[in-house]
Amino acid sequence: MKIAQVAPLFESVPPTAYGGTERVVSYLTEALVAQGHEVTLFASGDSDTAATLQPMCERSLRTDPRRPDWVMRHTMMVDEVFSQAHGFDVIHWHIDFLHYPLAQRFSVPSVTTLHGRLDLPDLVELHQQFQAMPLVSISDSQRAPMLQANWCGTVYHGLPLSLYGFHETPGDYFAFVGRVSPEKGLDRAIGIAIACGTPLRIAAKVDRADEAYFEQVIRPLLDHPLIDFVGEIGDAQKNDFIGRAKALLFPVDWPEPFGLVMIEALACGTPVVAWQRGSVPEVIKHGVTGFVVDNQADAIAAARNIHRIDRTRCREVFERRFSADTMAHRYLQVYQALIDARSDNNAQAAALKAA
Amino acid sequence: MKIAQVAPLFESVPPTAYGGTERVVSYLTEALVAQGHEVTLFASGDSDTAATLQPMCERSLRTDPRRPDWVMRHTMMVDEVFSQAHGFDVIHWHIDFLHYPLAQRFSVPSVTTLHGRLDLPDLVELHQQFQAMPLVSISDSQRAPMLQANWCGTVYHGLPLSLYGFHETPGDYFAFVGRVSPEKGLDRAIGIAIACGTPLRIAAKVDRADEAYFEQVIRPLLDHPLIDFVGEIGDAQKNDFIGRAKALLFPVDWPEPFGLVMIEALACGTPVVAWQRGSVPEVIKHGVTGFVVDNQADAIAAARNIHRIDRTRCREVFERRFSADTMAHRYLQVYQALIDARSDNNAQAAALKAA
Repeated sequence: MKIAQVAPLFESVPPTAYGGTERVVSYLTEALVAQGHEVTLFASGDSDTAATLQPMCERSLRTDPRRPDWVMRHTMMVDEVFSQAHGFDVIHWHIDFLHYPLAQRFSVPSVTTLHGRLDLPDLVELHQQFQAMPLVSISDSQRAPMLQANWCGTVYHGLPLSLYGFHETPGDYFAFVGRVSPEKGLDRAIGIAIACGTPLRIAAKVDRADEAYFEQVIRPLLDHPLIDFVGEIGDAQKNDFIGRAKALLFPVDWPEPFGLVMIEALACGTPVVAWQRGSVPEVIKHGVTGFVVDNQADAIAAARNIHRIDRTRCREVFERRFSADTMAHRYLQVYQALIDARSDNNAQAAALKAA
Repeated sequence: MKIAQVAPLFESVPPTAYGGTERVVSYLTEALVAQGHEVTLFASGDSDTAATLQPMCERSLRTDPRRPDWVMRHTMMVDEVFSQAHGFDVIHWHIDFLHYPLAQRFSVPSVTTLHGRLDLPDLVELHQQFQAMPLVSISDSQRAPMLQANWCGTVYHGLPLSLYGFHETPGDYFAFVGRVSPEKGLDRAIGIAIACGTPLRIAAKVDRADEAYFEQVIRPLLDHPLIDFVGEIGDAQKNDFIGRAKALLFPVDWPEPFGLVMIEALACGTPVVAWQRGSVPEVIKHGVTGFVVDNQADAIAAARNIHRIDRTRCREVFERRFSADTMAHRYLQVYQALIDARSDNNAQAAALKAA
């Protein structure tokens, strides 16, 4: 299949540091290439891929000191993709919505994965106007605020099998990985660890917007001898950091659209204690790959019982449900369905014309 | 002629306070309607027009407390305009570039007025990619950074004749109107007034970005007895504020793309002392409607000699060159040329097909 992947230009594909969307686009692109498809990746020029790279700017916008205008750069990319559109069987967009006006006027099938949360009034109105746009959700729960949109499927994120190694025997600590922001629930994670008498190691980034929250709510909690605030860590360190943990704590207080770190944990064989919000019950099977809880008391009980979860089983579930190959396979089904629907429409139109 | 005017959604058309582009779109739209054209205005829902208003959002984005996503709102507008495109002879865009990818794929002629400065590297690259897009400049000098673009003409801004009244006999002060920012040269204006021993009245807005500049550079200069910092003024006060001034001081230190306040002064009969930057020599005729100077010494000499400028002549020049009707007339020439070119192309294509 001839496939265009269109990535955001904010980070390179794959990104050097943070950039969840760009990471997933990279895993998907490489898996599709490995499966023998002809993939063209529209991304920043400092990207690295086995696909044909179409560089849409010299370097990722976030790292470009000239502070390029992101709307302009993405508009130019949309134009460029459509000027090549007839060379593709399908175009897969990861850049939100800037392409919608053109996509719905082109005969080449376009599909858009929405990578963020959807409970914003503006987004609902947008998709009322563009209700024919084929969309993919990254969890079923993500769709809740806009059930009426043209959903073609849910495709869970996936990781290359070799990215994280299986860790059979954990050390004696819980891990927290993520941003320090109210919706990520780090204060809850600290409470769980202290109640269990188990050390908590925290790999966390403090965005500028969250600095006040960090100073006022989190910093006073960090003095406890069980709590170790490691700060930001790179991909290389993540394998051991998560893999050696008894459990990953994921006490989110928002409608998490997917939660990549949960499948990173499963890839390591590390079970997850997570709050029942957003995608969580779809990603973590209660009692099998971790525990899905509703409140702090249940979370503490779950953390105490985490040894009951079979780490080998966690890795098995990861390999089956959350590998990059599984993700690529699911997307290929979505692409094929769109191509078939387009052909059916064309055949129907031709039949009407002939009649 | 069936004309679509597409305005930015940041302010209503006309705006309630600042918003140069929205003001000009309003003057143009009303003049075209008055001249008998069938005009559709795409703008925020709180706009006020004699044209057919197509409300693209409930209220102007700047005044909407829900803080709408401007890229989303403008993307939705672009889509809506093109879904109605075949009802128009021409579509006139005032929203920068978001419509370019679609505009160049549609047969209905589109023309875009660029309202800002163009000396940004990103803009040059953008217009290399979209080099066929028909553009209008608001001064010849504005074009300098991108001479190779597809310029269809320069159309100077215009104001309704009745907006400002002619003031034959001025009071004893100079006026400064504009933002307090380094490129607007308020410090120079203060220097000129003090050197001439003439009071300076300042109607100026301090944007958040300019607060440090205001505190450090400007505030220490405001203590002088000749200097009167009035702050922000509304349109109603502008007539007398500018009209009663001996001269408007316009000591800009940037490539001013047009400079609306210069023609507001001429409309009042008030001559202008302006630096030779950007559009200035096109708008102000040296020795006729004011003085165009290169340095502070010449500016002081010019301000001392401002009584030599005939105020009646200033108003005459305004009425001839800078009325809203003149602007509408010039735009109609641009529209007609685009429509003719499109017909010629179509005729040529048809002839080729028939041959």
